[in-house]
Amino acid sequence: MLKELKERVYQANLDLVGHGLVILTFGNASGIDRRRGIVAIKPSGVGYEEMKPADIVLVDLDGRRVEGKLRPSSDTPTHLALYRAFRTIGGIAHAHSEYATMFAQAGQEIPCLGTTHADHFRGPVPVTRLLAKSEVEHDYEATTGKLIAERFRRLDPAAVPAVLVAGHGPFAWGESPEDAVRNALVLEQVAKMALGTRVLAPGCGPLPVHLLHRHFERKHGPRATYGQKTTKE
Amino acid sequence: MLKELKERVYQANLDLVGHGLVILTFGNASGIDRRRGIVAIKPSGVGYEEMKPADIVLVDLDGRRVEGKLRPSSDTPTHLALYRAFRTIGGIAHAHSEYATMFAQAGQEIPCLGTTHADHFRGPVPVTRLLAKSEVEHDYEATTGKLIAERFRRLDPAAVPAVLVAGHGPFAWGESPEDAVRNALVLEQVAKMALGTRVLAPGCGPLPVHLLHRHFERKHGPRATYGQKTTKE
Amino acid sequence: MLKELKERVYQANLDLVGHGLVILTFGNASGIDRRRGIVAIKPSGVGYEEMKPADIVLVDLDGRRVEGKLRPSSDTPTHLALYRAFRTIGGIAHAHSEYATMFAQAGQEIPCLGTTHADHFRGPVPVTRLLAKSEVEHDYEATTGKLIAERFRRLDPAAVPAVLVAGHGPFAWGESPEDAVRNALVLEQVAKMALGTRVLAPGCGPLPVHLLHRHFERKHGPRATYGQKTTKE
Amino acid sequence: MLKELKERVYQANLDLVGHGLVILTFGNASGIDRRRGIVAIKPSGVGYEEMKPADIVLVDLDGRRVEGKLRPSSDTPTHLALYRAFRTIGGIAHAHSEYATMFAQAGQEIPCLGTTHADHFRGPVPVTRLLAKSEVEHDYEATTGKLIAERFRRLDPAAVPAVLVAGHGPFAWGESPEDAVRNALVLEQVAKMALGTRVLAPGCGPLPVHLLHRHFERKHGPRATYGQKTTKE
Repeated sequence: MLKELKERVYQANLDLVGHGLVILTFGNASGIDRRRGIVAIKPSGVGYEEMKPADIVLVDLDGRRVEGKLRPSSDTPTHLALYRAFRTIGGIAHAHSEYATMFAQAGQEIPCLGTTHADHFRGPVPVTRLLAKSEVEHDYEATTGKLIAERFRRLDPAAVPAVLVAGHGPFAWGESPEDAVRNALVLEQVAKMALGTRVLAPGCGPLPVHLLHRHFERKHGPRATYGQKTTKE
Repeated sequence: MLKELKERVYQANLDLVGHGLVILTFGNASGIDRRRGIVAIKPSGVGYEEMKPADIVLVDLDGRRVEGKLRPSSDTPTHLALYRAFRTIGGIAHAHSEYATMFAQAGQEIPCLGTTHADHFRGPVPVTRLLAKSEVEHDYEATTGKLIAERFRRLDPAAVPAVLVAGHGPFAWGESPEDAVRNALVLEQVAKMALGTRVLAPGCGPLPVHLLHRHFERKHGPRATYGQKTTKE
Repeated sequence: MLKELKERVYQANLDLVGHGLVILTFGNASGIDRRRGIVAIKPSGVGYEEMKPADIVLVDLDGRRVEGKLRPSSDTPTHLALYRAFRTIGGIAHAHSEYATMFAQAGQEIPCLGTTHADHFRGPVPVTRLLAKSEVEHDYEATTGKLIAERFRRLDPAAVPAVLVAGHGPFAWGESPEDAVRNALVLEQVAKMALGTRVLAPGCGPLPVHLLHRHFERKHGPRATYGQKTTKE
Repeated sequence: MLKELKERVYQANLDLVGHGLVILTFGNASGIDRRRGIVAIKPSGVGYEEMKPADIVLVDLDGRRVEGKLRPSSDTPTHLALYRAFRTIGGIAHAHSEYATMFAQAGQEIPCLGTTHADHFRGPVPVTRLLAKSEVEHDYEATTGKLIAERFRRLDPAAVPAVLVAGHGPFAWGESPEDAVRNALVLEQVAKMALGTRVLAPGCGPLPVHLLHRHFERKHGPRATYGQKTTKE
């Protein structure tokens, strides 16, 4: 069932490792078949070298396992909450990648300091609040998903396809599992460059808004001029 | 004798190099057969490329060589002191890995700033005091082991499976040689992320205790929900 | 047409990735045939693994596509403006390489702090001003090229073969595509070392001028003593 | 002539690249046959991939080429000055390795902050003064060698087998070309760890002298207990 989706989610998980975003089992990627409402996700605590495409677990949007012998990632309820809240996304990637996690641990958003950031995230990558004691006792992972959705109440998840969970690490998403992994990689890169920029220029302000928008629109929307896909020339 | 243990200790030593925790011969891993009271450890000063499983040295808990033509690692007395003090551990890994060593050299514990840390270490990774002049003159390496045990008098080595020896570097341990290497790797990762977090937010406090415990318990103890081993679902 | 140039530009683009200067599609290299006034450049948004030498696009100095089915890099107008302004250069490389981009985002030039820098850049690597709102609305990429040329009004592009575009990243150039990539690599290295030097010694001044010139002349000009090409011995 | 030495010097040069200490042609290693007074050294500006053992150049201690078609490294006079001043050394390695160069550019010695350092360098790695204008005009490279020798007037090059040339980068040496490369690698590692330690603890003092000596003696001299070579057990 959903063999192609499972293959792609399998590959997306391997790519998290290949890009250096994940060590050991500190990450997971998923993808969704929106028509059927079924999510394919990494099994919990299984090493990337031993994992096979058939190990990818299928669950429905309420978390019921539809296929697969293994337990899904312990972060599955977070993924499901995001798929329910952000109706247009097709894939999610979670990692404890080093630089994005530094910002998450510091409880700081990643400011948009340059065009690499602006090409992918229309504004700062936000950070959530910390969960209170009462919130972590039951359904901790689902609550994390709700926390992210709460943080995006006035943000467009398609324009800012990532978040930092305070004290934890980043979640990135996109149109597909591949796109989610790509955004997780760009996020790590912009986090590293933002840290270095801050070291050089502690009070450094964000990129002016006109440059932020100009760059985001080079790669997104009707005025996009980047890549081979548009017909405009 | 103990061929399987020697193979595993051999592999654990190679993994220290593979994970980038060790250059040249700056590290060593060991494992113990608790029933026989025999420890398998890397030979001293032998390069990782030339080392063979048969070169792994067997010693008893008093440091007498039981098997092997080569001299055991010069850090062997430290390993033995730890095996004697921490009765439940099955493996030890020592490295001068970069970021953990920075904290050791600074004489600072690694604070728990996020869930990556909390998943593996229930609280800060402690740092020992520096050894006095009289302490380094005889049995320096054994004294280092006693120093670590002294530091853990009120700590549970199963809940905090690593230490920083001030001015020196980290020792990590675990249920097995593999587990010790894994903890050494996670230690390095959390040290790197803690350094970056401090650069971003110099006064940054630790993760709230309720999040620390919640995360540690996801992976450890009767309420664990991570991985495939538990029957609970 | 211009098969050799296309092969070399193809390889130069791969080298940007091989040197770790580019992830995903965040970079591009080009080369020019000065006699014919034709520039060979990477196609826009095409992945490096899938790109073939035949995909390299040929354009004239006014940006008209001369050969190739794909659209040229969206940064093509910047490259063309540089080829028009700097008449002696034969290749250009653009990357969002991490450390050079940190300086670009901080809006700071890279000071010449040592001989590695002085061997390749005769003085600091300059940073442009930020573009105003009115400047980014039309021909943004061509304007970026003009901005760089403006910044070099009193600088010799052969003596300082790179620039940082504020809030964006570096452009490097040279006598050939290979030389441009080499300068992009050295730029990244000196940026990283300048950042670390600043962390160690925040008020650190530049290398004295007599050492700067002595080193630059070791590798450039009639008194060069480096390498095998000169006849002087 | 001296085929084995040339092979070893060839390999030592490749190892500088393999250890990540050198990019492009920014480094060189040499070895000496003390009996014949002949030095084998890398040719100038030749890429590491294209270099063959037969390209290694032989020169005498006055810099006259004894064998080889290529010009020797432009740093040859520095190497020769060191071989003349430090009579016991058998090999030299020069690199612009990142972290050691940061200290050289900052004009700061590398303090001994931990046992990794103390195992290899008995005290801080010193930094030279900057050369004056009159000193760089003639025989710049030979003057650099004299500058290093001047800095070591009261230091033992066998106990501290490396130096930082201010505004330039490190030179390391040892009993053989292999040993010199190893010291260059350790130097880079301790420089990186010293930088991070300083970031964590800006006023951090050096390792107490009793620990410095205890560690250096573990690996050197009659009380050495490290490795397989000593007979003492």
